[in-house]
Amino acid sequence: MNFKIKKLKKEYFEIAQKHIDFLTKPQGSLGKIETVAKRLFAIFQGNMPEKLNKRVYVFAGDHGIAKIGVSAFPQDVTRQMVYNFLRGGAAINVFSAHNDVDVRVVDTGVDYDFEENLELIDMKVGRGTKNIVVEPAMSLKDCEKCINNGRKLAEISKKDGINLLASGDMGIGNTTPSSVLFSKYLGLDAKDVVGKGTGISDEKILFKLDTVKKTLDRIKDIKDPLEILANAGGFEIAHIAGLAIGSAEQGIPYVVDGFISTAGALAAINICPEIGEYLFFAHISAEANYKKILNSMGYFALLDLDLRLGEGTGAVLAMNLIEAGLKMYNNMATFEGAGVSDTIDK
Amino acid sequence: MNFKIKKLKKEYFEIAQKHIDFLTKPQGSLGKIETVAKRLFAIFQGNMPEKLNKRVYVFAGDHGIAKIGVSAFPQDVTRQMVYNFLRGGAAINVFSAHNDVDVRVVDTGVDYDFEENLELIDMKVGRGTKNIVVEPAMSLKDCEKCINNGRKLAEISKKDGINLLASGDMGIGNTTPSSVLFSKYLGLDAKDVVGKGTGISDEKILFKLDTVKKTLDRIKDIKDPLEILANAGGFEIAHIAGLAIGSAEQGIPYVVDGFISTAGALAAINICPEIGEYLFFAHISAEANYKKILNSMGYFALLDLDLRLGEGTGAVLAMNLIEAGLKMYNNMATFEGAGVSDTIDK
Repeated sequence: MNFKIKKLKKEYFEIAQKHIDFLTKPQGSLGKIETVAKRLFAIFQGNMPEKLNKRVYVFAGDHGIAKIGVSAFPQDVTRQMVYNFLRGGAAINVFSAHNDVDVRVVDTGVDYDFEENLELIDMKVGRGTKNIVVEPAMSLKDCEKCINNGRKLAEISKKDGINLLASGDMGIGNTTPSSVLFSKYLGLDAKDVVGKGTGISDEKILFKLDTVKKTLDRIKDIKDPLEILANAGGFEIAHIAGLAIGSAEQGIPYVVDGFISTAGALAAINICPEIGEYLFFAHISAEANYKKILNSMGYFALLDLDLRLGEGTGAVLAMNLIEAGLKMYNNMATFEGAGVSDTIDK
Repeated sequence: MNFKIKKLKKEYFEIAQKHIDFLTKPQGSLGKIETVAKRLFAIFQGNMPEKLNKRVYVFAGDHGIAKIGVSAFPQDVTRQMVYNFLRGGAAINVFSAHNDVDVRVVDTGVDYDFEENLELIDMKVGRGTKNIVVEPAMSLKDCEKCINNGRKLAEISKKDGINLLASGDMGIGNTTPSSVLFSKYLGLDAKDVVGKGTGISDEKILFKLDTVKKTLDRIKDIKDPLEILANAGGFEIAHIAGLAIGSAEQGIPYVVDGFISTAGALAAINICPEIGEYLFFAHISAEANYKKILNSMGYFALLDLDLRLGEGTGAVLAMNLIEAGLKMYNNMATFEGAGVSDTIDK
């Protein structure tokens, strides 16, 4: 697959730093908010928008693995939650309304045939993936289809005037393939990347760990990042990867939610390393050893609230902080403009 | 001084927990957002408002200590920044507009006579405090006046329909008295509570540390918490303490900003321990060893963004997360209502 991503120019970071240092506050005193603002300025190539038009795509998909008992919830909950999203009753709906974020729900591969006329984007690639312990989750061709679907949504978003994108996930069983991806792409030990998911028992965690190890063993000779994703990912995870790549292609900053979305983003980075500069990581997920995972990837997160829900909930909360960075950049007075003395300690 | 604070009822926490566990998400998966929601429910005595009407008071005051050179900025910056607040050019104005927070600016003791007809609340107690190294910052009577001013503002806020309050500070030199208060109230070593403030040199940090130590030595026999505040605080810090107490008296949750506001809140807790349940701590300030300080106090913070600006900026950003907790509580569907299966792992 071929992607065209603009490398961010160093020059924009320098211009932004200079501007921020003239704002009426001690230099560097807004910490990570300043870091965010600088990268936004570079992504927007020096043309800061007045505000952020925010959208989250919630990708739903089922997993063959769910049938062997790795989750605390029955597989049918994926379908049930899609209806909950469409009726506006889920956490992602509530947080999105709170932070003025447009929510779009996408069927990437739920094991159910939804009726037509729903406010549901139909990108179904199959009715659930295969059992990754014994065979690839999906074919390489289907994986490419997922990636291209995600890219298509970024393209549509660009046309809709969206300038901040995020993804969310819904898929019973999807922490298991995510753990496999973290271990495989980052070389981390399986026990460091397996957690309690939606809240499984200690006994089930051992079974889940075993499932992850067996899958890793099955794919041990596979090196190609897209092939790894096809083998051990999920339809929603591959769409998340596609949206991450597409956002970078469209020059839109992209907020990565928690455990599952990070697995998708990690796949995307491996498939197309140039997208890395367009990503903001929302929060330190409470799932497994997420902080270690994020550190291995070389990123920091904006929030640390012990969230482990998915759906894009952490991303949508973090969007408020990212927009605060934009507004700091656009709307604060400068020392000179406000008649405020600069530091005497230079 | 006498205060009347309602103790939060355990019963409200239990009702809230039960409600939250029926919402369509794995139990506990919204982490600290759930913790916030439970305490809001208890503070509001079971009557959750539909939304939060948010206000921040920015207290400005000068410090005798600023004249001996503990800061990176000249003392006149306190006055200059008051004008910046009134014109809407400071970070607190920008973040407050972003999160729909009402900003009020209070002169508690700036070393300048402001003209009348400004949108400035005049609660001036003096033109700057005294040099705390050699004498009390203010008299005990003036300190009580500051506390009562803060309580008065909470009372006015209640009448205005405000149901979430925060404070911010502006006062060149005010990390020094704050460090003294942390060391004195918490028994922490001076070197653990002294930092670079707005950005002073290593040489100045040593001078500042010496200033803190000398002040601690001067007040070593003082035990009464109000007397400690009068001796080593500041006009704005004592107002922050007063607003914290007043918020609890009025049944309004109170968001504590960073280093300075935490020093004020700590004084308030020592003066009136019952207020502790009404406080939310906004963020891990980048000043000195703030995390250790907050742990010593037994609290957690919502954000960790390396902020060290004050003004209430961190508090106003955290308010968005607190309101997310309220909306989660009010607006999410229940498992039964949404037809979603509960966990099978009970």
